Amino acid sequence: MNPATPTPSATDSQLLKRIDQSLETFLDRRSLPRSLDDAIRYALFGGGKRIRPVLCLRACEAVGGQVDSALPAAGAIELVHTFSLVHDDLPAMDDDDLRRGRPTLHKQTNEAMAILAGDAMTALAFELIESESSDKAIVGPLCAQLASATREMIAGQVYDTMGGQPDDLQPIDRLRMTHELKTGALLSASVQMGAIAGMATDGQVASLKVYASTIGLMFQAVDDLLDVTQTADKMGKATQKDAEQGKLTYPGLLGVEGTREEIEKLRQQALKALSDFDSRADPLREMAERLAHRQR
Amino acid sequence: MNPATPTPSATDSQLLKRIDQSLETFLDRRSLPRSLDDAIRYALFGGGKRIRPVLCLRACEAVGGQVDSALPAAGAIELVHTFSLVHDDLPAMDDDDLRRGRPTLHKQTNEAMAILAGDAMTALAFELIESESSDKAIVGPLCAQLASATREMIAGQVYDTMGGQPDDLQPIDRLRMTHELKTGALLSASVQMGAIAGMATDGQVASLKVYASTIGLMFQAVDDLLDVTQTADKMGKATQKDAEQGKLTYPGLLGVEGTREEIEKLRQQALKALSDFDSRADPLREMAERLAHRQR
Repeated sequence: MNPATPTPSATDSQLLKRIDQSLETFLDRRSLPRSLDDAIRYALFGGGKRIRPVLCLRACEAVGGQVDSALPAAGAIELVHTFSLVHDDLPAMDDDDLRRGRPTLHKQTNEAMAILAGDAMTALAFELIESESSDKAIVGPLCAQLASATREMIAGQVYDTMGGQPDDLQPIDRLRMTHELKTGALLSASVQMGAIAGMATDGQVASLKVYASTIGLMFQAVDDLLDVTQTADKMGKATQKDAEQGKLTYPGLLGVEGTREEIEKLRQQALKALSDFDSRADPLREMAERLAHRQR
Repeated sequence: MNPATPTPSATDSQLLKRIDQSLETFLDRRSLPRSLDDAIRYALFGGGKRIRPVLCLRACEAVGGQVDSALPAAGAIELVHTFSLVHDDLPAMDDDDLRRGRPTLHKQTNEAMAILAGDAMTALAFELIESESSDKAIVGPLCAQLASATREMIAGQVYDTMGGQPDDLQPIDRLRMTHELKTGALLSASVQMGAIAGMATDGQVASLKVYASTIGLMFQAVDDLLDVTQTADKMGKATQKDAEQGKLTYPGLLGVEGTREEIEKLRQQALKALSDFDSRADPLREMAERLAHRQR
């Protein structure tokens, strides 16, 4: 087959099924205490949008790799993302009772279990990469990416909830820095880990890094916008909490219209970063569009 | 130099200094939020006995490796061990105010910070292995060992605090299973990761596995014994809590004398597992003695 004529992409729903199946198979093979296993599955299969693992698989595809070779990385990223939601929802943190329209894990079980399930998911993420990657040479680089992104995500959560950003930054730069860490790092790692699994060239990785960090900022800007324009009913979680807690947000700094303009600017930047890629990057292009216009 | 005439071992205090220095250097290179960095260092450099990292370095030495090649693994293990203490001390878990004679991290800072610092330490552990290992071929195996041991440790904590062990096990076997996971897994990983870093043979790894799991059980039996025979003052933490919480313990099942006999049996088993090793395993032999007779 001519490499310029790629096979048609799997649909997103086909990818979602493969991600969930590979996570289930992996968990089935671990003999976790029943209560812990239940807690992890409750959080992990709770209707998440799977944006990060899909990004990972799409990035692998965009650089010419086989989607399946990025499945371990994709599952690992979803495990880390889910752990972060579970811990962020805890009473000592954001104290949320509702996530994706269902009780948060500590409400469904108890706080101790939510802490331990989150801890276990982090460990399982690294275990998944090692045990399910057929090419052992990429295990180290994948673990390194995931570890530093996780560390950055936590640093972002510290800045977001407790402040402490460098004093000499302007508010908009403090906001960007916080979100580049809190949301951007893992989104960026998703794309880069997919690229690693797809054996990308250095040039491809560099372009995808720009795409990913732009997508990350856009994602947060949309989140902030939805927080002030949507109702709790539609979001499946409490809204307007950020403003009430006095957090830095895009609408707070730029207004609703200014935030819409920022999102449009970021959308264009994301597409521009992909200009050297062929049609195999179309799903990534569509994701940029979809993330810019998402309603929840 | 004749390989049968090894260079004299570094003393334990020399090893402790190298472990702490390598952890400090690693943390210095990460640009963590100041408050998070302070919290991690408070927990990490709080007078821990460093049993696991020393075991790791000693295992590397016992199989003929250079101690320094196991330093990243040793530091990673201490990070994971410290994270587990920080989370176990949380109000929703063991609710301890005192650790090693100082306020626990959530008392010193706050619960949110203790949760996040624990999370960050896990990520840092994997990052440390990748960034500081000069031989990239062992990164994958080291990450895999650490990840599965961390997952097992958490499973053990679930069994210990919430029960749920398989129904058909006798109480003493439920106790052993719990501790093999909660304490044994990470001690065992310490020894095995040291062996990996020291390029051990399969036979050496097998023997060290027996040594490590025996040491792990012995460690817990001594812990349980000290819990009923020592005062809080001497231990630097609350004692007799296990009995009050109705947990399975060695003295509870075997009595104080029976526990002493169990410790002696385990000590002999640990030494026997090392019978094929030369004098380079002497520090491991001494550790078995010391752990059997420790007073805190």
